[in-house]
Amino acid sequence: MNGQTFVLKGDLCYSIDRYTTAGVPDGWLVCVDGVWEGVFRALPERYAGLPVLDYTGKLVIPGLVDLHVHAPQYTFRGLGLDLELLDWLDQRAFPEEARYADEDYAAAAYRRFVEEMRRGPNSRACVFATRHVPATEELMDQLEASGLITMVGKVNMDRNAPEALRESSAAGSLRDTAAWLEETRGKYRRTRPILTPRFIPSCTDELLSGLGELRRAWELPVQSHLSENRGEVEWVQQLCPWSSCYGDAYDHFGLFGGALGGTIMAHCVLSGEEEIARMKERDVTVAHCPQSNTNLASGIAPVRRYLEEGLSVGLGSDVAGGNHLSILRAMADAIQVSKLRWRLQDESLRPLTIPEAFWMGTLGGGAFFGKVGTFREGYEADAVVLDDSRLAGPREFSITERLERAIYLLEERDVAAKFVAGTRLFG
Amino acid sequence: MNGQTFVLKGDLCYSIDRYTTAGVPDGWLVCVDGVWEGVFRALPERYAGLPVLDYTGKLVIPGLVDLHVHAPQYTFRGLGLDLELLDWLDQRAFPEEARYADEDYAAAAYRRFVEEMRRGPNSRACVFATRHVPATEELMDQLEASGLITMVGKVNMDRNAPEALRESSAAGSLRDTAAWLEETRGKYRRTRPILTPRFIPSCTDELLSGLGELRRAWELPVQSHLSENRGEVEWVQQLCPWSSCYGDAYDHFGLFGGALGGTIMAHCVLSGEEEIARMKERDVTVAHCPQSNTNLASGIAPVRRYLEEGLSVGLGSDVAGGNHLSILRAMADAIQVSKLRWRLQDESLRPLTIPEAFWMGTLGGGAFFGKVGTFREGYEADAVVLDDSRLAGPREFSITERLERAIYLLEERDVAAKFVAGTRLFG
Repeated sequence: MNGQTFVLKGDLCYSIDRYTTAGVPDGWLVCVDGVWEGVFRALPERYAGLPVLDYTGKLVIPGLVDLHVHAPQYTFRGLGLDLELLDWLDQRAFPEEARYADEDYAAAAYRRFVEEMRRGPNSRACVFATRHVPATEELMDQLEASGLITMVGKVNMDRNAPEALRESSAAGSLRDTAAWLEETRGKYRRTRPILTPRFIPSCTDELLSGLGELRRAWELPVQSHLSENRGEVEWVQQLCPWSSCYGDAYDHFGLFGGALGGTIMAHCVLSGEEEIARMKERDVTVAHCPQSNTNLASGIAPVRRYLEEGLSVGLGSDVAGGNHLSILRAMADAIQVSKLRWRLQDESLRPLTIPEAFWMGTLGGGAFFGKVGTFREGYEADAVVLDDSRLAGPREFSITERLERAIYLLEERDVAAKFVAGTRLFG
Repeated sequence: MNGQTFVLKGDLCYSIDRYTTAGVPDGWLVCVDGVWEGVFRALPERYAGLPVLDYTGKLVIPGLVDLHVHAPQYTFRGLGLDLELLDWLDQRAFPEEARYADEDYAAAAYRRFVEEMRRGPNSRACVFATRHVPATEELMDQLEASGLITMVGKVNMDRNAPEALRESSAAGSLRDTAAWLEETRGKYRRTRPILTPRFIPSCTDELLSGLGELRRAWELPVQSHLSENRGEVEWVQQLCPWSSCYGDAYDHFGLFGGALGGTIMAHCVLSGEEEIARMKERDVTVAHCPQSNTNLASGIAPVRRYLEEGLSVGLGSDVAGGNHLSILRAMADAIQVSKLRWRLQDESLRPLTIPEAFWMGTLGGGAFFGKVGTFREGYEADAVVLDDSRLAGPREFSITERLERAIYLLEERDVAAKFVAGTRLFG
């Protein structure tokens, strides 16, 4: 997918690596055919003829990556958060998702979700739809039109859900999934399917086995949930007594690994030693969702441990377990909960830093999409321009200080422009 | 102070008590001379001639109360939060506060603070200034002009601070304080002085003793910090080896009690049994500051315990330990951290609920200002009109559901109108 060719000018801020954030005041960022050529302190002669988009004084950062979000739950974000996971699913999430059988409802509801994501600081996302094929295709159509780059999953769930939402058989679920894959094959430039078994309690062994086969046949990535909440982990142990850990229950069916496009597992709050070792061995990507894990009283994932192990880790909004789509907010939440974990649970795991949280929300999650998440040469040209002028005060701040304040204080309305793979979405 | 006489129409939402939030759709709220006459489902005949301010479809809640905020720290909110309390004070707060010796700097910096507080959902606040009398009076002038109702403290600090900020002697600090009280006596309608020893580590016994005398002579309320952070609590024990607990170090000097206008103690994260009993005995008001306690890795205060003991409890933004002035955000933070405390630290203390957090941010904190924080007859007429239309979706929500979503999702820009003791500030 070729994007445009242009030069951005502004105060550039991006991750070099997990420990280091670069800040280049009045820098030049060159995009050729949707790919960054790199950051320059003065514009090289060879780019002199390119159009310049001048964002002088504004903060320009890579587009943010949301590794875990439920599109149909956007309608009721901020509600019902006095419940824990399994009750919240039964009382809030499942009844709402059942409404997406109605295509008109789905189209109207998804329009709000897509428009807020388009206007916010995220450029890419891995998205759960519902089990309904028409509504999932509607969502994919809308996301494609938005200019965002996403992976979208029709959800599979053939047990332990209300009848209105549960798929009536494994075979039916697999048939619907194959039809969805056929119908959307080659249809989009920016939108890819991702296999999406809801979580082990929602999927029979027969369904998981069939999804493993589909995965191999279509070479598809996978997304699901892992070790989020105590009641859930115990339930999985009952449902799959043969599994050595929750992750093993996916792995058994070929749904837990980095090959074939990769696997995202959301949460990993309660993963034990074996599961961590398996995630590392299989290069599973962890989607850390701090606000959701707080709201549903699940706990705090040991993210520092995952980073030290060298696991792939990014951030997820997990709307509507989380309330906010912005991955800036997820960065702040990740830092804040890591401090409480350090203070209350385990002083051996130091709190996360601003450079680490910024890295997770850009390069960390971006890796799932390829060369995405920074301004270095060869990376896809995602950028967000933040107008932080309302945070200005009587004294000056450095670019990295402005980034820190942006993470804690900026809102969707402060996004002045957005580019995804070289395409300007607005601003 | 007599406010105006009018009728508000809208979707009214307010606390009945700690456990109960009332929601009255299309309700009528009558204000006579700045005091509520009560909430009516139909406008009684006797009020038929009053001017009606029509906010149909909008959410009308009591003005929110911030029991703990540092005005001079507003300039650097969202910055330096990788530090714990004592290092953060040395590296961030103290150097910034020293700048307020410059009256021009203070005037410019306070204008931003006052304007954001005026535009946001808080109607009242207890505010720390700095040790500087001219800058403190400038802040009081600005707050008075804003229409907000506040208590403002010139800070006392004569030890353990950089020379540029430390007062050179107890006698000098007391002289300045007396001069400040004299100069502002009778000057304001909405702005009251409150004695503000920074915290025990910043104040010699001589200073605290003199402040106790000033307090009795002037019948003044007091605000300070208590048992926030482990390093601080240990330091107080070293500085006051004669004290039986941190709170006892204030109490010894007559600075810990509900008489003479009351006492606010911010944080109380680490208060032990004796301190809790003393707070109860003396009717000390706890200002719970969840975001600050998270940012500075202090921990999570046992607020449920304080509520069960019948202590007076309200919420504080604690900018710039906290990043956000809005007490809506403090309500969300209070609920969220209470869930983590329950999960990680003490399962005997259930998480806080939405009605409890709403109560703390309105009636709980409002009690420090008198009859403030709800719409019942005889309460002062503080109200905030929230435009939550951008949260609307394909289905309807009840008023209390809309309140819950407002707590998690609304921002300063969503405040459509504000009234403080019957005076309309805007909208």
